[in-house]
Amino acid sequence: MTNHRLEQQLCFILEIDKLKSIIRRTYLVNTERFENSAEHSWHLAMMAILLAEYANEPVDLLTVLKMLLIHDIIEIDAGDTFAYDPVGNQDQAEREAQAADRLFNLLPEEQAVELRALWDAFEARATPEARFAKALDRLMPILHNYASHGKAWQENGIRREQVIAYNQHMAEGSATLWEYARATIDDAVARGFLAG
Amino acid sequence: MTNHRLEQQLCFILEIDKLKSIIRRTYLVNTERFENSAEHSWHLAMMAILLAEYANEPVDLLTVLKMLLIHDIIEIDAGDTFAYDPVGNQDQAEREAQAADRLFNLLPEEQAVELRALWDAFEARATPEARFAKALDRLMPILHNYASHGKAWQENGIRREQVIAYNQHMAEGSATLWEYARATIDDAVARGFLAG
Repeated sequence: MTNHRLEQQLCFILEIDKLKSIIRRTYLVNTERFENSAEHSWHLAMMAILLAEYANEPVDLLTVLKMLLIHDIIEIDAGDTFAYDPVGNQDQAEREAQAADRLFNLLPEEQAVELRALWDAFEARATPEARFAKALDRLMPILHNYASHGKAWQENGIRREQVIAYNQHMAEGSATLWEYARATIDDAVARGFLAG
Repeated sequence: MTNHRLEQQLCFILEIDKLKSIIRRTYLVNTERFENSAEHSWHLAMMAILLAEYANEPVDLLTVLKMLLIHDIIEIDAGDTFAYDPVGNQDQAEREAQAADRLFNLLPEEQAVELRALWDAFEARATPEARFAKALDRLMPILHNYASHGKAWQENGIRREQVIAYNQHMAEGSATLWEYARATIDDAVARGFLAG
């Protein structure tokens, strides 16, 4: 085979297989194990297909899907930084930018540029699509924690005020989903799943 | 919360978490474990974003992505049927249709109808999008097997002629990718990864 462009693309596709081994701090609903970042990305994409009607602003669904499918690829180099880890969060942006430089540049140039621009927009919540995609990325762990009776919240000593502070930018992407998340958080406190 | 529609949608979203526990017969590239159908669906969606230029006919990428993201959800009820299992394949279509009836109907009606139509089209290879999506679904296990030196092929006693026969409809979706797959299969035989 002498198709250099296709070889480059398939090299990237095999490289990102590693995302299946990046472990998050959120349990599956059945709590049998932590989820990984690849299956998490699939789950968010499914949410986008089904919940796009709740975006605050009109969104291009294809752009939202691309953002969600690629948003965690940088973790292959940078690792998953736990949301409530103040130390890990100090150098997170720098580690992730370096990862983006290496990983996306495995692709043919115009594809590298497109994916990098989507990832930058997502990180900066710079567009309606990015704000909605970020809202979904924050809603899912709340649903997972609620469904697993707060298992990961409790193991990490997380309190209601931290969950509210960390996730409140959801409202920029979807007021409806943030309202639902707030109600879920309060119900989790009432049921003893989350410290008040 | 009294938003019945949103509750229905989130019920489906939590139900499909189970796809992360459906185990395929294909190893990760690093061979540390089999992959599951949720992370596999993510990987195929990434392929579609990067390889759409190789579709035989022009395709709507959003439709391809939706097909690939939902194509295995029926396995939550029907299980993953191994490609080269003639017994499992006898009643596969019936088991999967029943699964589609239950699972998609958890959604609000118009979303259930949309996803079911996409899944039916995918299964029947009825549209350019379906033929291309099916081609990607067949290419990935060949790449995985090659990358892992034929581990799953060998464990299941698979031979070259079976791989060719099972996957040759790839050519309907992408002549270029089928040509690449053929060359990969022949190279796998030459290297001893696959029985000739």
